[in-house]
Amino acid sequence: MFYHVQSLINPIVDDQPDPSAANALQEGLGGQFGEMRTMMQYLFQSFNFRGDGIPYLDLIQGVGIEEISHVELITKTISRLLDGAPEYHGGKYDVPGAGGDPVMNMAKEQKNVQHFIHGAQGALPVDSAGNPWSGSYVHNHGNLVLDLMDNLVLESTGRLQKCRIYQMSSNKTLRATVAYLIARDEAHEMAFAKALETLGIDWGKALPIPKFDATQFPEVKKLIDAGINREQYTFRLDGSEMGKIFQGSAPANDGTELITLTEPRESFPIPSAPERPEEFAPGLDPEMQDLADALAEFKDKTLKDMERKAGQNP
Amino acid sequence: MFYHVQSLINPIVDDQPDPSAANALQEGLGGQFGEMRTMMQYLFQSFNFRGDGIPYLDLIQGVGIEEISHVELITKTISRLLDGAPEYHGGKYDVPGAGGDPVMNMAKEQKNVQHFIHGAQGALPVDSAGNPWSGSYVHNHGNLVLDLMDNLVLESTGRLQKCRIYQMSSNKTLRATVAYLIARDEAHEMAFAKALETLGIDWGKALPIPKFDATQFPEVKKLIDAGINREQYTFRLDGSEMGKIFQGSAPANDGTELITLTEPRESFPIPSAPERPEEFAPGLDPEMQDLADALAEFKDKTLKDMERKAGQNP
Amino acid sequence: MFYHVQSLINPIVDDQPDPSAANALQEGLGGQFGEMRTMMQYLFQSFNFRGDGIPYLDLIQGVGIEEISHVELITKTISRLLDGAPEYHGGKYDVPGAGGDPVMNMAKEQKNVQHFIHGAQGALPVDSAGNPWSGSYVHNHGNLVLDLMDNLVLESTGRLQKCRIYQMSSNKTLRATVAYLIARDEAHEMAFAKALETLGIDWGKALPIPKFDATQFPEVKKLIDAGINREQYTFRLDGSEMGKIFQGSAPANDGTELITLTEPRESFPIPSAPERPEEFAPGLDPEMQDLADALAEFKDKTLKDMERKAGQNP
Amino acid sequence: MFYHVQSLINPIVDDQPDPSAANALQEGLGGQFGEMRTMMQYLFQSFNFRGDGIPYLDLIQGVGIEEISHVELITKTISRLLDGAPEYHGGKYDVPGAGGDPVMNMAKEQKNVQHFIHGAQGALPVDSAGNPWSGSYVHNHGNLVLDLMDNLVLESTGRLQKCRIYQMSSNKTLRATVAYLIARDEAHEMAFAKALETLGIDWGKALPIPKFDATQFPEVKKLIDAGINREQYTFRLDGSEMGKIFQGSAPANDGTELITLTEPRESFPIPSAPERPEEFAPGLDPEMQDLADALAEFKDKTLKDMERKAGQNP
Amino acid sequence: MFYHVQSLINPIVDDQPDPSAANALQEGLGGQFGEMRTMMQYLFQSFNFRGDGIPYLDLIQGVGIEEISHVELITKTISRLLDGAPEYHGGKYDVPGAGGDPVMNMAKEQKNVQHFIHGAQGALPVDSAGNPWSGSYVHNHGNLVLDLMDNLVLESTGRLQKCRIYQMSSNKTLRATVAYLIARDEAHEMAFAKALETLGIDWGKALPIPKFDATQFPEVKKLIDAGINREQYTFRLDGSEMGKIFQGSAPANDGTELITLTEPRESFPIPSAPERPEEFAPGLDPEMQDLADALAEFKDKTLKDMERKAGQNP
Amino acid sequence: MFYHVQSLINPIVDDQPDPSAANALQEGLGGQFGEMRTMMQYLFQSFNFRGDGIPYLDLIQGVGIEEISHVELITKTISRLLDGAPEYHGGKYDVPGAGGDPVMNMAKEQKNVQHFIHGAQGALPVDSAGNPWSGSYVHNHGNLVLDLMDNLVLESTGRLQKCRIYQMSSNKTLRATVAYLIARDEAHEMAFAKALETLGIDWGKALPIPKFDATQFPEVKKLIDAGINREQYTFRLDGSEMGKIFQGSAPANDGTELITLTEPRESFPIPSAPERPEEFAPGLDPEMQDLADALAEFKDKTLKDMERKAGQNP
Repeated sequence: MFYHVQSLINPIVDDQPDPSAANALQEGLGGQFGEMRTMMQYLFQSFNFRGDGIPYLDLIQGVGIEEISHVELITKTISRLLDGAPEYHGGKYDVPGAGGDPVMNMAKEQKNVQHFIHGAQGALPVDSAGNPWSGSYVHNHGNLVLDLMDNLVLESTGRLQKCRIYQMSSNKTLRATVAYLIARDEAHEMAFAKALETLGIDWGKALPIPKFDATQFPEVKKLIDAGINREQYTFRLDGSEMGKIFQGSAPANDGTELITLTEPRESFPIPSAPERPEEFAPGLDPEMQDLADALAEFKDKTLKDMERKAGQNP
Repeated sequence: MFYHVQSLINPIVDDQPDPSAANALQEGLGGQFGEMRTMMQYLFQSFNFRGDGIPYLDLIQGVGIEEISHVELITKTISRLLDGAPEYHGGKYDVPGAGGDPVMNMAKEQKNVQHFIHGAQGALPVDSAGNPWSGSYVHNHGNLVLDLMDNLVLESTGRLQKCRIYQMSSNKTLRATVAYLIARDEAHEMAFAKALETLGIDWGKALPIPKFDATQFPEVKKLIDAGINREQYTFRLDGSEMGKIFQGSAPANDGTELITLTEPRESFPIPSAPERPEEFAPGLDPEMQDLADALAEFKDKTLKDMERKAGQNP
Repeated sequence: MFYHVQSLINPIVDDQPDPSAANALQEGLGGQFGEMRTMMQYLFQSFNFRGDGIPYLDLIQGVGIEEISHVELITKTISRLLDGAPEYHGGKYDVPGAGGDPVMNMAKEQKNVQHFIHGAQGALPVDSAGNPWSGSYVHNHGNLVLDLMDNLVLESTGRLQKCRIYQMSSNKTLRATVAYLIARDEAHEMAFAKALETLGIDWGKALPIPKFDATQFPEVKKLIDAGINREQYTFRLDGSEMGKIFQGSAPANDGTELITLTEPRESFPIPSAPERPEEFAPGLDPEMQDLADALAEFKDKTLKDMERKAGQNP
Repeated sequence: MFYHVQSLINPIVDDQPDPSAANALQEGLGGQFGEMRTMMQYLFQSFNFRGDGIPYLDLIQGVGIEEISHVELITKTISRLLDGAPEYHGGKYDVPGAGGDPVMNMAKEQKNVQHFIHGAQGALPVDSAGNPWSGSYVHNHGNLVLDLMDNLVLESTGRLQKCRIYQMSSNKTLRATVAYLIARDEAHEMAFAKALETLGIDWGKALPIPKFDATQFPEVKKLIDAGINREQYTFRLDGSEMGKIFQGSAPANDGTELITLTEPRESFPIPSAPERPEEFAPGLDPEMQDLADALAEFKDKTLKDMERKAGQNP
Repeated sequence: MFYHVQSLINPIVDDQPDPSAANALQEGLGGQFGEMRTMMQYLFQSFNFRGDGIPYLDLIQGVGIEEISHVELITKTISRLLDGAPEYHGGKYDVPGAGGDPVMNMAKEQKNVQHFIHGAQGALPVDSAGNPWSGSYVHNHGNLVLDLMDNLVLESTGRLQKCRIYQMSSNKTLRATVAYLIARDEAHEMAFAKALETLGIDWGKALPIPKFDATQFPEVKKLIDAGINREQYTFRLDGSEMGKIFQGSAPANDGTELITLTEPRESFPIPSAPERPEEFAPGLDPEMQDLADALAEFKDKTLKDMERKAGQNP
Repeated sequence: MFYHVQSLINPIVDDQPDPSAANALQEGLGGQFGEMRTMMQYLFQSFNFRGDGIPYLDLIQGVGIEEISHVELITKTISRLLDGAPEYHGGKYDVPGAGGDPVMNMAKEQKNVQHFIHGAQGALPVDSAGNPWSGSYVHNHGNLVLDLMDNLVLESTGRLQKCRIYQMSSNKTLRATVAYLIARDEAHEMAFAKALETLGIDWGKALPIPKFDATQFPEVKKLIDAGINREQYTFRLDGSEMGKIFQGSAPANDGTELITLTEPRESFPIPSAPERPEEFAPGLDPEMQDLADALAEFKDKTLKDMERKAGQNP
């Protein structure tokens, strides 16, 4: 069973909207090597897990749970990059297209116009070429060594693609999230490589993939300095054996050490997203808004009354 | 951010393996109206949510978090239905196909042979016709009323399809899970219909869809008698405003009341899945098994030593 | 603009249900060379038509309009073949699965279980392997000669596949429809080949494709004897220049003549389809049925009153 | 059976070519919520219809027949928006690329270059991101209430997306068609909502979706003033029971009344599309053109002779 | 540039037709981890290769060329398994379905009826669930280490799946081809693992994947005894640097040695496939057959005359 | 079995990078009518060939083998057009994004950003709208006449689309390859049309498709003057009967003659592709580069020693 808190695993940094940056980032969300796949691949592998190798199960599943939070993070980043894009910077209004002015004038020229037609300037479950995510991306072979190697290739590809995307834009909203994912993908490379190391493989100097000094990306450097790329979290409320594998020297063989934690040391508030009247989002007209408000107030009051009498709603 | 406990939201009931039942149930997992879609649709809707209607956000997201646990439940049910199917009932052995005996003799005649080729007798992210799940299934229009109505149609379709699947098999493993999902889909119908009720719609006698007395299915009756179809859970560790909407009379207008809870009243152990040597799952040979065991023992000891000295690993 | 009459282009012949026959026939509906493609391909070609070759436009579009009626015919044939399949022959009841008896006991073993889960024993827009129809099947090159040749290949493939399907079953419901489509596909081969003949190609003895004596199929022979394979219909309420091309000697060079008609010489009643309570189709419970009936009666009466006073509703 | 007249349901208004407007409009044709889906969904629902609720059948099918004409309208609108785009405004010539001048110089920079490679500056069966239309878009659950609600969600999404597209361009060719479809989608919302109203649901003030004053779009206002958004057409040559449902007060509860008509009060000529030599469309060289012309002339004369003697070709 | 000889890389062994074995084997041809993917993945990687690591390029490309011959082998194996299946064992006849006897009586009950409708009892570019092969299967990351690891995972999955398929049938036609591919996939695992070894990775005892004694499969044992699993072929007519990598001790660390050869030590005749009149394959009627024969004879004679005078046609 | 030489069938001509030209050319590689399809379609047709019409088999297969070399040519052309695109012209460096300068600054604005994320500025198996290649494109009907006609339509469409692409850009890299493919597609049209001519069809003046004077494209004229459009190659190392069909007068009926050759009269060197550090391609860091170099040197020397003693490695 799964639980949630309304916090982000990394902060959304503010910058200008940039719809082509949002589109590039879609690859990291709904692409073949994006977060939707890592999430689903590790969940399927752990739900279908066979045998009694509990530490391996807990490792795979722990990473998988984290990936749900990555989907959350990257979705909100894309949404932020699209918000008010390409040129319209907000303000609530009740007359879309008033005076004949096309308020979404440039929308149809953007990389994926479905960001403005299907969604209300929000993330979509598609890749950077607009192809919908496919279940065929999920690999769950059942053979433990092979599943671990497949996961290592997956994380390495994720890291490679994000290093490429990083270079495509200096937008701070994009770079903050991408830098975080580069650091985390490196931690996940360590996780699966370490699991394979326990089964006899010596990685020499091959890791991480791609092999370069990521501290040349300033936003990544800051995270590496904080050790983000050598921690793994269990996100388990009832204990985990992940730490039996994810500890000791990192398989990158660079002198660093692996640390298992229950959860990240810090979490971050989720910024709220403004209404978008030109997208009819959320699209309550005054009459419906009144209904909603009245109900909320009434229930709020009722709830408080009830609680005062009977204790907190469970 | 998301968290996990190693418990199931409903128990797996034991019965014979049945690969065509497993295949039918794939529709409920990876089909267009299955749990992978509900999970993804509600997560996208909540991550992309606009405006300040927090109770609506919390309602959609709360159902979405539950759906991850449904994916977990249905995946494990399919896995169990396939385990040892079609005819082979287990026992560890180290010589697949020894003596020329084709141990997976009937596998190629089953509904989806990929259950035995791609997976190791485990669930796949596909529908009952073998089509991979598609991101195009996820609807997130941005308009609140429309998103709620889309969700209501989705839950109603899920319930309809599961009522059809229920009739296809008397296998207890299948029926236990399907009955639970029928009851929960009804609760979710109530959730989205109630939200629309707060915005002015009166459902009359139209709900639930399909309209029939589900207590005629004995396994469902038991759950309805326990009130499972009128509860909704927030699964939130930090509070939720879901209860402002999900309370009071049910929109089925049948005299029942809605109750918001933090989590289900009960949870259930996750049964472990045996090795499948004929599938090379997990496929560690004695040498690798030794490596894994030794490491585990050593670390186990080390960990205990460290803990004895320094307190529990965080 | 398009119009409709509630008649079929060929009669549905009664026989036992046969879900694997229905599945094979799906290839003729939603397959790459099925009726959904011919319909869409010719409609796109005629809507996008360039230049002043009106007889060519009218020929392509005329065949295209007929294909909508083929989609209608084949959909109803599949629906009929599935009705009550695999073993349940009907009778209205209000307790699906009463007594624990799985009324759709064999459904999950059938070729495409989605016929019983997605649809209510009705046709689906998929092929015989369960793949959804794709817009990529539609070819509209813009070059007239090429479009005509593509259409000729399409009709020939349709005829080839239906000749193969014909041999797969002696079910009369299947054979009546397949035989009709074999005859009509031959007429359509003539249509596109004749159009190419006017542009200079001599087909020698190559047509029709496949080249064999289709009168060996008794149901086809009857239709050929009636001349069905040498007629083409315009289905135009406002005149057509199709007849400028579709007349004279057939390009099969077998001594037959082509005849253009406005519509088929005969049309056939559409059989009604019974309710399927086990599918919750249509699924109105007594209360909703009463509402519907009352309204219908009331309006019926009102309508009659109004008409008596004011003349027929336009 | 289906029939056709060579008229459009709404006029094509003349303006400059605009390939990105054409691409946005593809969403309305081949997108998941576009006209190809509405057409196919309603046709499948009516062909697979079960039970004796003829007014419901006639309502669904009547809307379905109209959708074929919408496919016709939107296809021709896209084709017009592409015609001569991006920069080349016509004139017949016989030397593509003469003098080394790239006549389709900008084509490869446009939103979907397949408009210029696959098609000859014509509409394609794809969405605005270039994904082919999929049969999985068609929902036909078999349960009447659910099918009606699915249709209501579909029409609401169609209307929402078209309201967004409307704001993206002031091109008159685009706006004329989009405005018409906004008005008609509202009529279709009324149709399905009214059918549900007869089964007991009261929509309050929730309709139409999206909820805003569409008369702020001038082209839409004109159509609403003419009542286009409260009429529904049967398009049936042999009578229809649609009017039993589609009459009386509109479910938008705004004091308007619903009116059932056999067909729209007006229809419009189909503009012819010029040749596009740079696309080899239609691509007849002088020799083939002579053959075609000679044949046409000869047959024209023959036909007239025959008619003079024997009466009009049937 | 590519060349061909009409020989097979492994013989087709004769046995009874078996359409479900053919269907299982489709996974090895058109599945996500089948031969079409390996062929395309290695060709793309070698065509897009960057840098001066010629031995790595030659290794990847050499395996890629071999995979084309594997596509040839597996296609012909499937074709053979389908030939005359499910029950019809041949003999040329000219009256398909004569006497009303459905000669393809059982075809519609087989695993993929498209084997009998789309193809003429021949292989299709689809997987064992009938999904068409997708270009998204091809991974070409550009990073050498990652591409090599991806290839290793791919070959390991191929070998795993074929070991599973091997156990599904004792049909000799299937087993001969599958056993050969198991041995070759192991050689390819060695190839990519060895390339990674040169870059610093030590595989310990992890290879091959899956880790078990494949000599328990008798047909595989014979090939391993002949050393087939430790040879790699360049298939290059103009020299190759593959041997710089593929030599020395095998990365399975089992004491075996790797050997680079230009081509396999033996090649095998391609059996011809009989006509299938019930499939209209090839479908020449007597008249067309005469034309073909006459032409062939005439040209045969002419060619011989010309050659006698002028020397062999180049 | 297949063999390879490291030569191209046509030279890569040097010009500026042009990513939108590369994207348009993707249609010719991974599009529905591109080289991946022709290659796969003819290979499947020849592998599944039935009957004793060896000259027809050899003709289809011969063209098929050539298509592999076309995939090689077009892949390398796309790769070249992307190399250093959009604006960055190279030079090896070890600090991607050094100084915060986004070196792939414009990449996210290009037509298909996956060229820079998925691939390392290399070709992808997708079409010009980013859709992955699909196995459903491959048509292999089994009926010889139909397969030949399908192939003729395919080659004609290929030629039509390439004539359109030719006009889109004056880039010499693009035009050299496209012009060659226009000439070769015309040869392939001749091949399949001639095969149909032997079976009785007279093409009159209908060929080639599209019908226009291609010598108006200067690069094509040069190739036609050299006779490239009337030659066909067998690419068979062990003889072929293709020449029985592909000889005599061309079916274009323009007075030209067909000539069968074993291989093209000329072949061309394959240009090497530079490293792309910003893409981490190939991405060996100095340490790994040393390992690779050392090994290569050592083996080089060893190999030479061995050869000096024992003769060339086979």
